[in-house]
Amino acid sequence: MSNPKTTKTAITPRRDEDFPEWYQQVIRAAELAEPSDVRGCMVIRPWGYGIWENMQRQLDALIRATGHRNAYFPLFIPLSYFAKEAEHVEGFAKECAVVTHYRLKIDEDGGLVPDPESKLAEPLIVRPTSETIIGASYAKWVQSYRDLPILINQWCNIVRWEMRTRLFLRTTEFLWQEGHTVHETEAEAREETKRMLGVYETFVREHCAIPVFAGLKSDSEKFPGAVETMALEAMVQDRKAIQAGTSHFLGQNFARASGIQFQTREGKQEFGWTTSWGMTTRMVGTVVMAHGDDDGVVLPPRIAPTHIVILPITTRQDTSAKVLETCDRLAAELRARKYLDDVAIEVEVDRRNLGGGVKNWEWIKKGVPLRVEIGPRDLEKNSVEVSRRDQEVKAKESMPLEEFAARAPEILTSIQDGLYARAKKFRDANTRVIDSKKDFYDFFTPKNAAKPEIHGGFALAHWNGSREIEEQIKNDLKVTIRAIPLDDSSEPGKCIFTGGPSARRVIWAKSY
Amino acid sequence: MSNPKTTKTAITPRRDEDFPEWYQQVIRAAELAEPSDVRGCMVIRPWGYGIWENMQRQLDALIRATGHRNAYFPLFIPLSYFAKEAEHVEGFAKECAVVTHYRLKIDEDGGLVPDPESKLAEPLIVRPTSETIIGASYAKWVQSYRDLPILINQWCNIVRWEMRTRLFLRTTEFLWQEGHTVHETEAEAREETKRMLGVYETFVREHCAIPVFAGLKSDSEKFPGAVETMALEAMVQDRKAIQAGTSHFLGQNFARASGIQFQTREGKQEFGWTTSWGMTTRMVGTVVMAHGDDDGVVLPPRIAPTHIVILPITTRQDTSAKVLETCDRLAAELRARKYLDDVAIEVEVDRRNLGGGVKNWEWIKKGVPLRVEIGPRDLEKNSVEVSRRDQEVKAKESMPLEEFAARAPEILTSIQDGLYARAKKFRDANTRVIDSKKDFYDFFTPKNAAKPEIHGGFALAHWNGSREIEEQIKNDLKVTIRAIPLDDSSEPGKCIFTGGPSARRVIWAKSY
Repeated sequence: MSNPKTTKTAITPRRDEDFPEWYQQVIRAAELAEPSDVRGCMVIRPWGYGIWENMQRQLDALIRATGHRNAYFPLFIPLSYFAKEAEHVEGFAKECAVVTHYRLKIDEDGGLVPDPESKLAEPLIVRPTSETIIGASYAKWVQSYRDLPILINQWCNIVRWEMRTRLFLRTTEFLWQEGHTVHETEAEAREETKRMLGVYETFVREHCAIPVFAGLKSDSEKFPGAVETMALEAMVQDRKAIQAGTSHFLGQNFARASGIQFQTREGKQEFGWTTSWGMTTRMVGTVVMAHGDDDGVVLPPRIAPTHIVILPITTRQDTSAKVLETCDRLAAELRARKYLDDVAIEVEVDRRNLGGGVKNWEWIKKGVPLRVEIGPRDLEKNSVEVSRRDQEVKAKESMPLEEFAARAPEILTSIQDGLYARAKKFRDANTRVIDSKKDFYDFFTPKNAAKPEIHGGFALAHWNGSREIEEQIKNDLKVTIRAIPLDDSSEPGKCIFTGGPSARRVIWAKSY
Repeated sequence: MSNPKTTKTAITPRRDEDFPEWYQQVIRAAELAEPSDVRGCMVIRPWGYGIWENMQRQLDALIRATGHRNAYFPLFIPLSYFAKEAEHVEGFAKECAVVTHYRLKIDEDGGLVPDPESKLAEPLIVRPTSETIIGASYAKWVQSYRDLPILINQWCNIVRWEMRTRLFLRTTEFLWQEGHTVHETEAEAREETKRMLGVYETFVREHCAIPVFAGLKSDSEKFPGAVETMALEAMVQDRKAIQAGTSHFLGQNFARASGIQFQTREGKQEFGWTTSWGMTTRMVGTVVMAHGDDDGVVLPPRIAPTHIVILPITTRQDTSAKVLETCDRLAAELRARKYLDDVAIEVEVDRRNLGGGVKNWEWIKKGVPLRVEIGPRDLEKNSVEVSRRDQEVKAKESMPLEEFAARAPEILTSIQDGLYARAKKFRDANTRVIDSKKDFYDFFTPKNAAKPEIHGGFALAHWNGSREIEEQIKNDLKVTIRAIPLDDSSEPGKCIFTGGPSARRVIWAKSY
């Protein structure tokens, strides 16, 4: 690694100087998104939306492959629906956008105001999640066990009013998918909850190149109204945890609230067993924080809107036509090849009339996996200069044009794999088995007051299951239980805070 | 054609008995969508949403191929933005959902109410269209002619409060795409407006199998705030017109309202020239009304969620395993083939334990292009029974299994082409050149009071361009000018209402 003190980076500040500010600058430099004038709502710019579209298409294929179909339910939820599940309403009441009127009028002063005559008898909530509105439909669709399971997913926008927002990570409006299923038995619903967590794990690991821990949430971190919430926790480069997909076993709570009842095989009436699960545009921010470097975004090829950018060097008049022609020919050759699951390679020839350095840095900051320069000297040798975004930004490899065209899919795969390996190494290096309260407090206490953004990492420690301890740790250190791991690798032990019995180690961290 | 009086149809009433009611029943029988308990909002069920997903993917590819990229802008528009363009606000003020609070609380009676302390200083409008909110971003992005053109599209939900709603055709919430572009010159913006109308025409004709007339809207039918609105008009089976895609040349109106200014090549400051264009979930309803028959939906293969359904006949125990195995083998063979532009053939084997007749009729009502039955007798002959949805529902053709597998792409293409030809023949048969006021009034006046749903069709008639005449015709007959055709085939003539000069014939019709 080069010396960070002497090397100028494209992003200021560097990650180790001020991670939150680095994040904002990276998002801006890559033109992923920007704040809008509407409080808490962001504008997702084409490059950022292109990443989301790739995530969406690929996750959608996994959701379909597990037998789910997409549908669309109303944006608005009548207040009375929303109030049906007590914990649910308590969880969301404080962050709801409320529609109260359906018309505007010009008032006496000539100003535009909500028309008082159009006041709604019952206010409408802009969906913060759709369990209650979808439940109302399911209650109509489900009569008998023969109608089950119902396996539906929805891609849509969501509104949860936020006071302190951060692009992609926490915004008043965001985009997501929400799956909502109904099952005949508790066992099937529990199995579905786990299956969809598994789908997310596959997606995050194989498509976003990010390792995750899968686990249960403690009661205090559960989805409002759920019996059990499962989640994936990823570590980003300030060593904080970020939730990457959740899957909820809702028991019969929402079925009871919405009246989803069916006749069983034995002819009795029973409430359905429901699940819900979601992944959001937050994942775009997670990818930035997991893979980005001091020069900007670094995109895993699978979710990059453009895999390869070709940069023609047309400084010499006599060769520029030939250079452009060669670039176009290479682009056509690359586009004819497939990458991984039959994904066509997306190639852009950047013909803009700007300096080569300016263009090169723009693409570095955007995180395009491969940059290819072709200039007059390359023509003579029939070669190209290739730069991988996962390597030093100044590293270039010269290779014969035909060889590059043939090897591009393999190089992209190697970048994808390399990013995963690097993220896993980082995560593992910052995940610590901790066996005493002192070590735990030390781990999460900044050693250097000048760098407030050191967060310790993930601590695997025994805990007696008490909510009071959770509260205490949260108050002392801003650290919470991120996941109670689902796998069976942990042995029973003693709670490091109380000495009481503990069934297994749980994962603690500061989190987004 | 069979005698409608004696043949029982799957949908009651038939089209010729009560077209609006037929439409509602078809939508219900095919499980495309249903009303929700939220006033004016519909639930789009998986089969209906699957059609929309296909439309979306295919139209999106056409939009990308013309150089546009997708992005996402906020759902909410501050009231003050919305008020910036006078005609615009006048056009939409009466149908806006208004957000006034951002929190709920429990009141003294224990009821859930909007928290008065969370009242917004400035109300937010749920977007009825996004010119003003997107314009605010463009104003920041555009500084110089070098930043132009901006070519962006957005897929999203839209809210326009409706009192009288009809599934897909008119709902308070609907889904659409909206393109928003900024150009350096008027000529470029006008060219873009036309180009995108052309994209829609290609999409509606080639993907939805519906012929359209392309034309300008008269001033009274323009988009609020536009200089010029172009639209496609399709005819459905009650001979009414329905708008299938619009493209607006906005001049500098919205650029002025939003402050989209740039430095020209000559160093002056000028306002940008903008366009916007959209197509909505209304297109799903248009397809139903254009192609449906008295047995339900008839889907053009290109937009059908499932192209071929295979129905195993497993009544005989001794052969049922073999039948299912043959069905699966055929499905796998079909899935390996491509249809048209490299689209994989979507095949479903319906193994549900229901009667063959019940299943067959379900798929007829859903409009699946091809149904294939395989039973014990077919096994012996190694043949299949094929039914095309564009032919008599009882017509079946027996053909060797291998031949069917090989010919399936060609049969699907022939269904697609046949539906277009049928719709065009119907449209042409009901489009009349009319040269007198009397003939015009006769054409649009029901000849038979018992059948109130006869609408004449499209009348091509000369008009002097006056708004008063338009008003008069609308009041007398509920007929409006649907399009002023863009092509140059019409000769000048005399207005049939006033005798005044007319530059060309325009298209008149009743409309949705």
